Amino acid sequence: MEYLAIGKKEIENAHQRIKPYIHRTNLLSSGFFDNLTGAHVYFKPENFQKIGAFKARGGINAVLNLTKEEQSCGIITHSSGNHAQAVAYAASIMGVRCWIVMPKNAPKVKIEAVRGYGAEITFCENTLEARESGVKSIQNKTNAIFIHPFNDRHVIAGQATAAKEVFEDCEEPLDAIIAPVGGGGLLSGTGLSARLFSNNSTKVYGAEPEGAADAVLSFKSGRIEKAPFVNTIADGLLTNLGDITLPIIRETVSDILLVNDDEIVEAMRLIWERMKIIVEPSGAVSTAVLIKNRSLFSGSKVGVIISGGNVDLGKLPF
Amino acid sequence: MEYLAIGKKEIENAHQRIKPYIHRTNLLSSGFFDNLTGAHVYFKPENFQKIGAFKARGGINAVLNLTKEEQSCGIITHSSGNHAQAVAYAASIMGVRCWIVMPKNAPKVKIEAVRGYGAEITFCENTLEARESGVKSIQNKTNAIFIHPFNDRHVIAGQATAAKEVFEDCEEPLDAIIAPVGGGGLLSGTGLSARLFSNNSTKVYGAEPEGAADAVLSFKSGRIEKAPFVNTIADGLLTNLGDITLPIIRETVSDILLVNDDEIVEAMRLIWERMKIIVEPSGAVSTAVLIKNRSLFSGSKVGVIISGGNVDLGKLPF
Repeated sequence: MEYLAIGKKEIENAHQRIKPYIHRTNLLSSGFFDNLTGAHVYFKPENFQKIGAFKARGGINAVLNLTKEEQSCGIITHSSGNHAQAVAYAASIMGVRCWIVMPKNAPKVKIEAVRGYGAEITFCENTLEARESGVKSIQNKTNAIFIHPFNDRHVIAGQATAAKEVFEDCEEPLDAIIAPVGGGGLLSGTGLSARLFSNNSTKVYGAEPEGAADAVLSFKSGRIEKAPFVNTIADGLLTNLGDITLPIIRETVSDILLVNDDEIVEAMRLIWERMKIIVEPSGAVSTAVLIKNRSLFSGSKVGVIISGGNVDLGKLPF
Repeated sequence: MEYLAIGKKEIENAHQRIKPYIHRTNLLSSGFFDNLTGAHVYFKPENFQKIGAFKARGGINAVLNLTKEEQSCGIITHSSGNHAQAVAYAASIMGVRCWIVMPKNAPKVKIEAVRGYGAEITFCENTLEARESGVKSIQNKTNAIFIHPFNDRHVIAGQATAAKEVFEDCEEPLDAIIAPVGGGGLLSGTGLSARLFSNNSTKVYGAEPEGAADAVLSFKSGRIEKAPFVNTIADGLLTNLGDITLPIIRETVSDILLVNDDEIVEAMRLIWERMKIIVEPSGAVSTAVLIKNRSLFSGSKVGVIISGGNVDLGKLPF
């Protein structure tokens, strides 16, 4: 199996490598959510992670895995969101030159954050084609190494450390763990860690918005499918799966469960009001899945990965 | 000195008594705020406390200190905010009957929370007179015991446990600690704990909104003064000091520092964006004071009490 190429040792090494640069985010519990769902829930709050999202893990691992020679070429990626910050942060740690291609309508706060890490920003139209051609044109001049947001073994091994920490920090074996799925870096890493660092009975669930329902189709067909339509507030989960993440997810994940935007916003509001922590819409999708499927999870011990907390306070859905 | 009547043993006993019912909130640090202020800051996030604010500490201690006979009469208070929830929560723990007089314009979410703890709510106009007469009329029928929001030794001893935990959990002696001041329950408790559980060089600062600047006047004159005007977003800090809190504050606090609403909202936004935690405006006032007076605190180790996180998400100042 392709996914077996990312083994226990590789994830352990990734964890060791990135440890000086990430937070070990502490698990949170909430009597309110336990009562609401009938489950005993362990929240993994990656909104408290460096750059405000789990993406710091994979980005840093990818950059640390480059050779000195590769690092000297600099690194590049395109992203409007958390991956841009993760790569820029990783570059700043390593003192590596960094270019980020961002859509010109990206939120100001994210542009400022990327700039704050010293990355050079090139703006483009908000289409995949424009982003990719922006990257190509800079690479032609610089030989900068492209850091993929998810379809990259070092990125996946880095994201896998979030669930690894959940299993290590839980007092008890988990029956299930839920992670959101966009391109599948976090979900495939979570699946791997469930296999490698938990007991075999921990079921892994992907959480996906109905308004970007590609992973659920790909999971069934085994091919990389597109969503029938794309329209969701969970702007971190719009991407399709990749040819590395899909087979790992097919092998390690029990199911991918869908929620609509009303359910996502309601979960987000409950997390804000009851847990007093700030999560972005994409970060609330796993909790929305837990709430919607409470009959499935009731009586279980469940890990829930809150993926990030980078939200524009001027554009809240409440 | 009157305040010496609340001694080390009394606060230790309060802490022991309330421990089963409160969270020991973990200190937080933030590289961003350390860089911004030049101080090494230990945030005490009482927004994560039961009922979302430190008030749970004092309310529970007050109710636990009642005799069985007193408890059998039930308890009563008036409050539009966190004290109402604290008293209702304390009553629910002890199985004591509870009446809360609330202004009829109180936020729905707070009314629901109080009701959720099983308290009986009476609505009144939003004036002190209307609230007090609402309490009197219920007391006439029931003999319910009034739990004062701050001017009560058991309440003060309970609030003192927040700073006690700060001093116990810090790796190093603090040069200063900042707490917001409304009626002075938290600030007087913080002052007492600084004297009793820290070294004598820890200076205590009160943080007060310019739009409710009564404590700063009372601190200077030694009499309970009213604010020249009342108009601030920090709705938890509108109250005047009491005849128990004022002398303790005069004895144990170094200074009371003022911030305006723009500074409070800016501090609140920075805490939300950078620390990813939800604090209410009153809860951000101590951080606003830290930022405004960074020249005073630069190079110091500073405790900052974030008093609460109960905010109406439909009415944010961003």
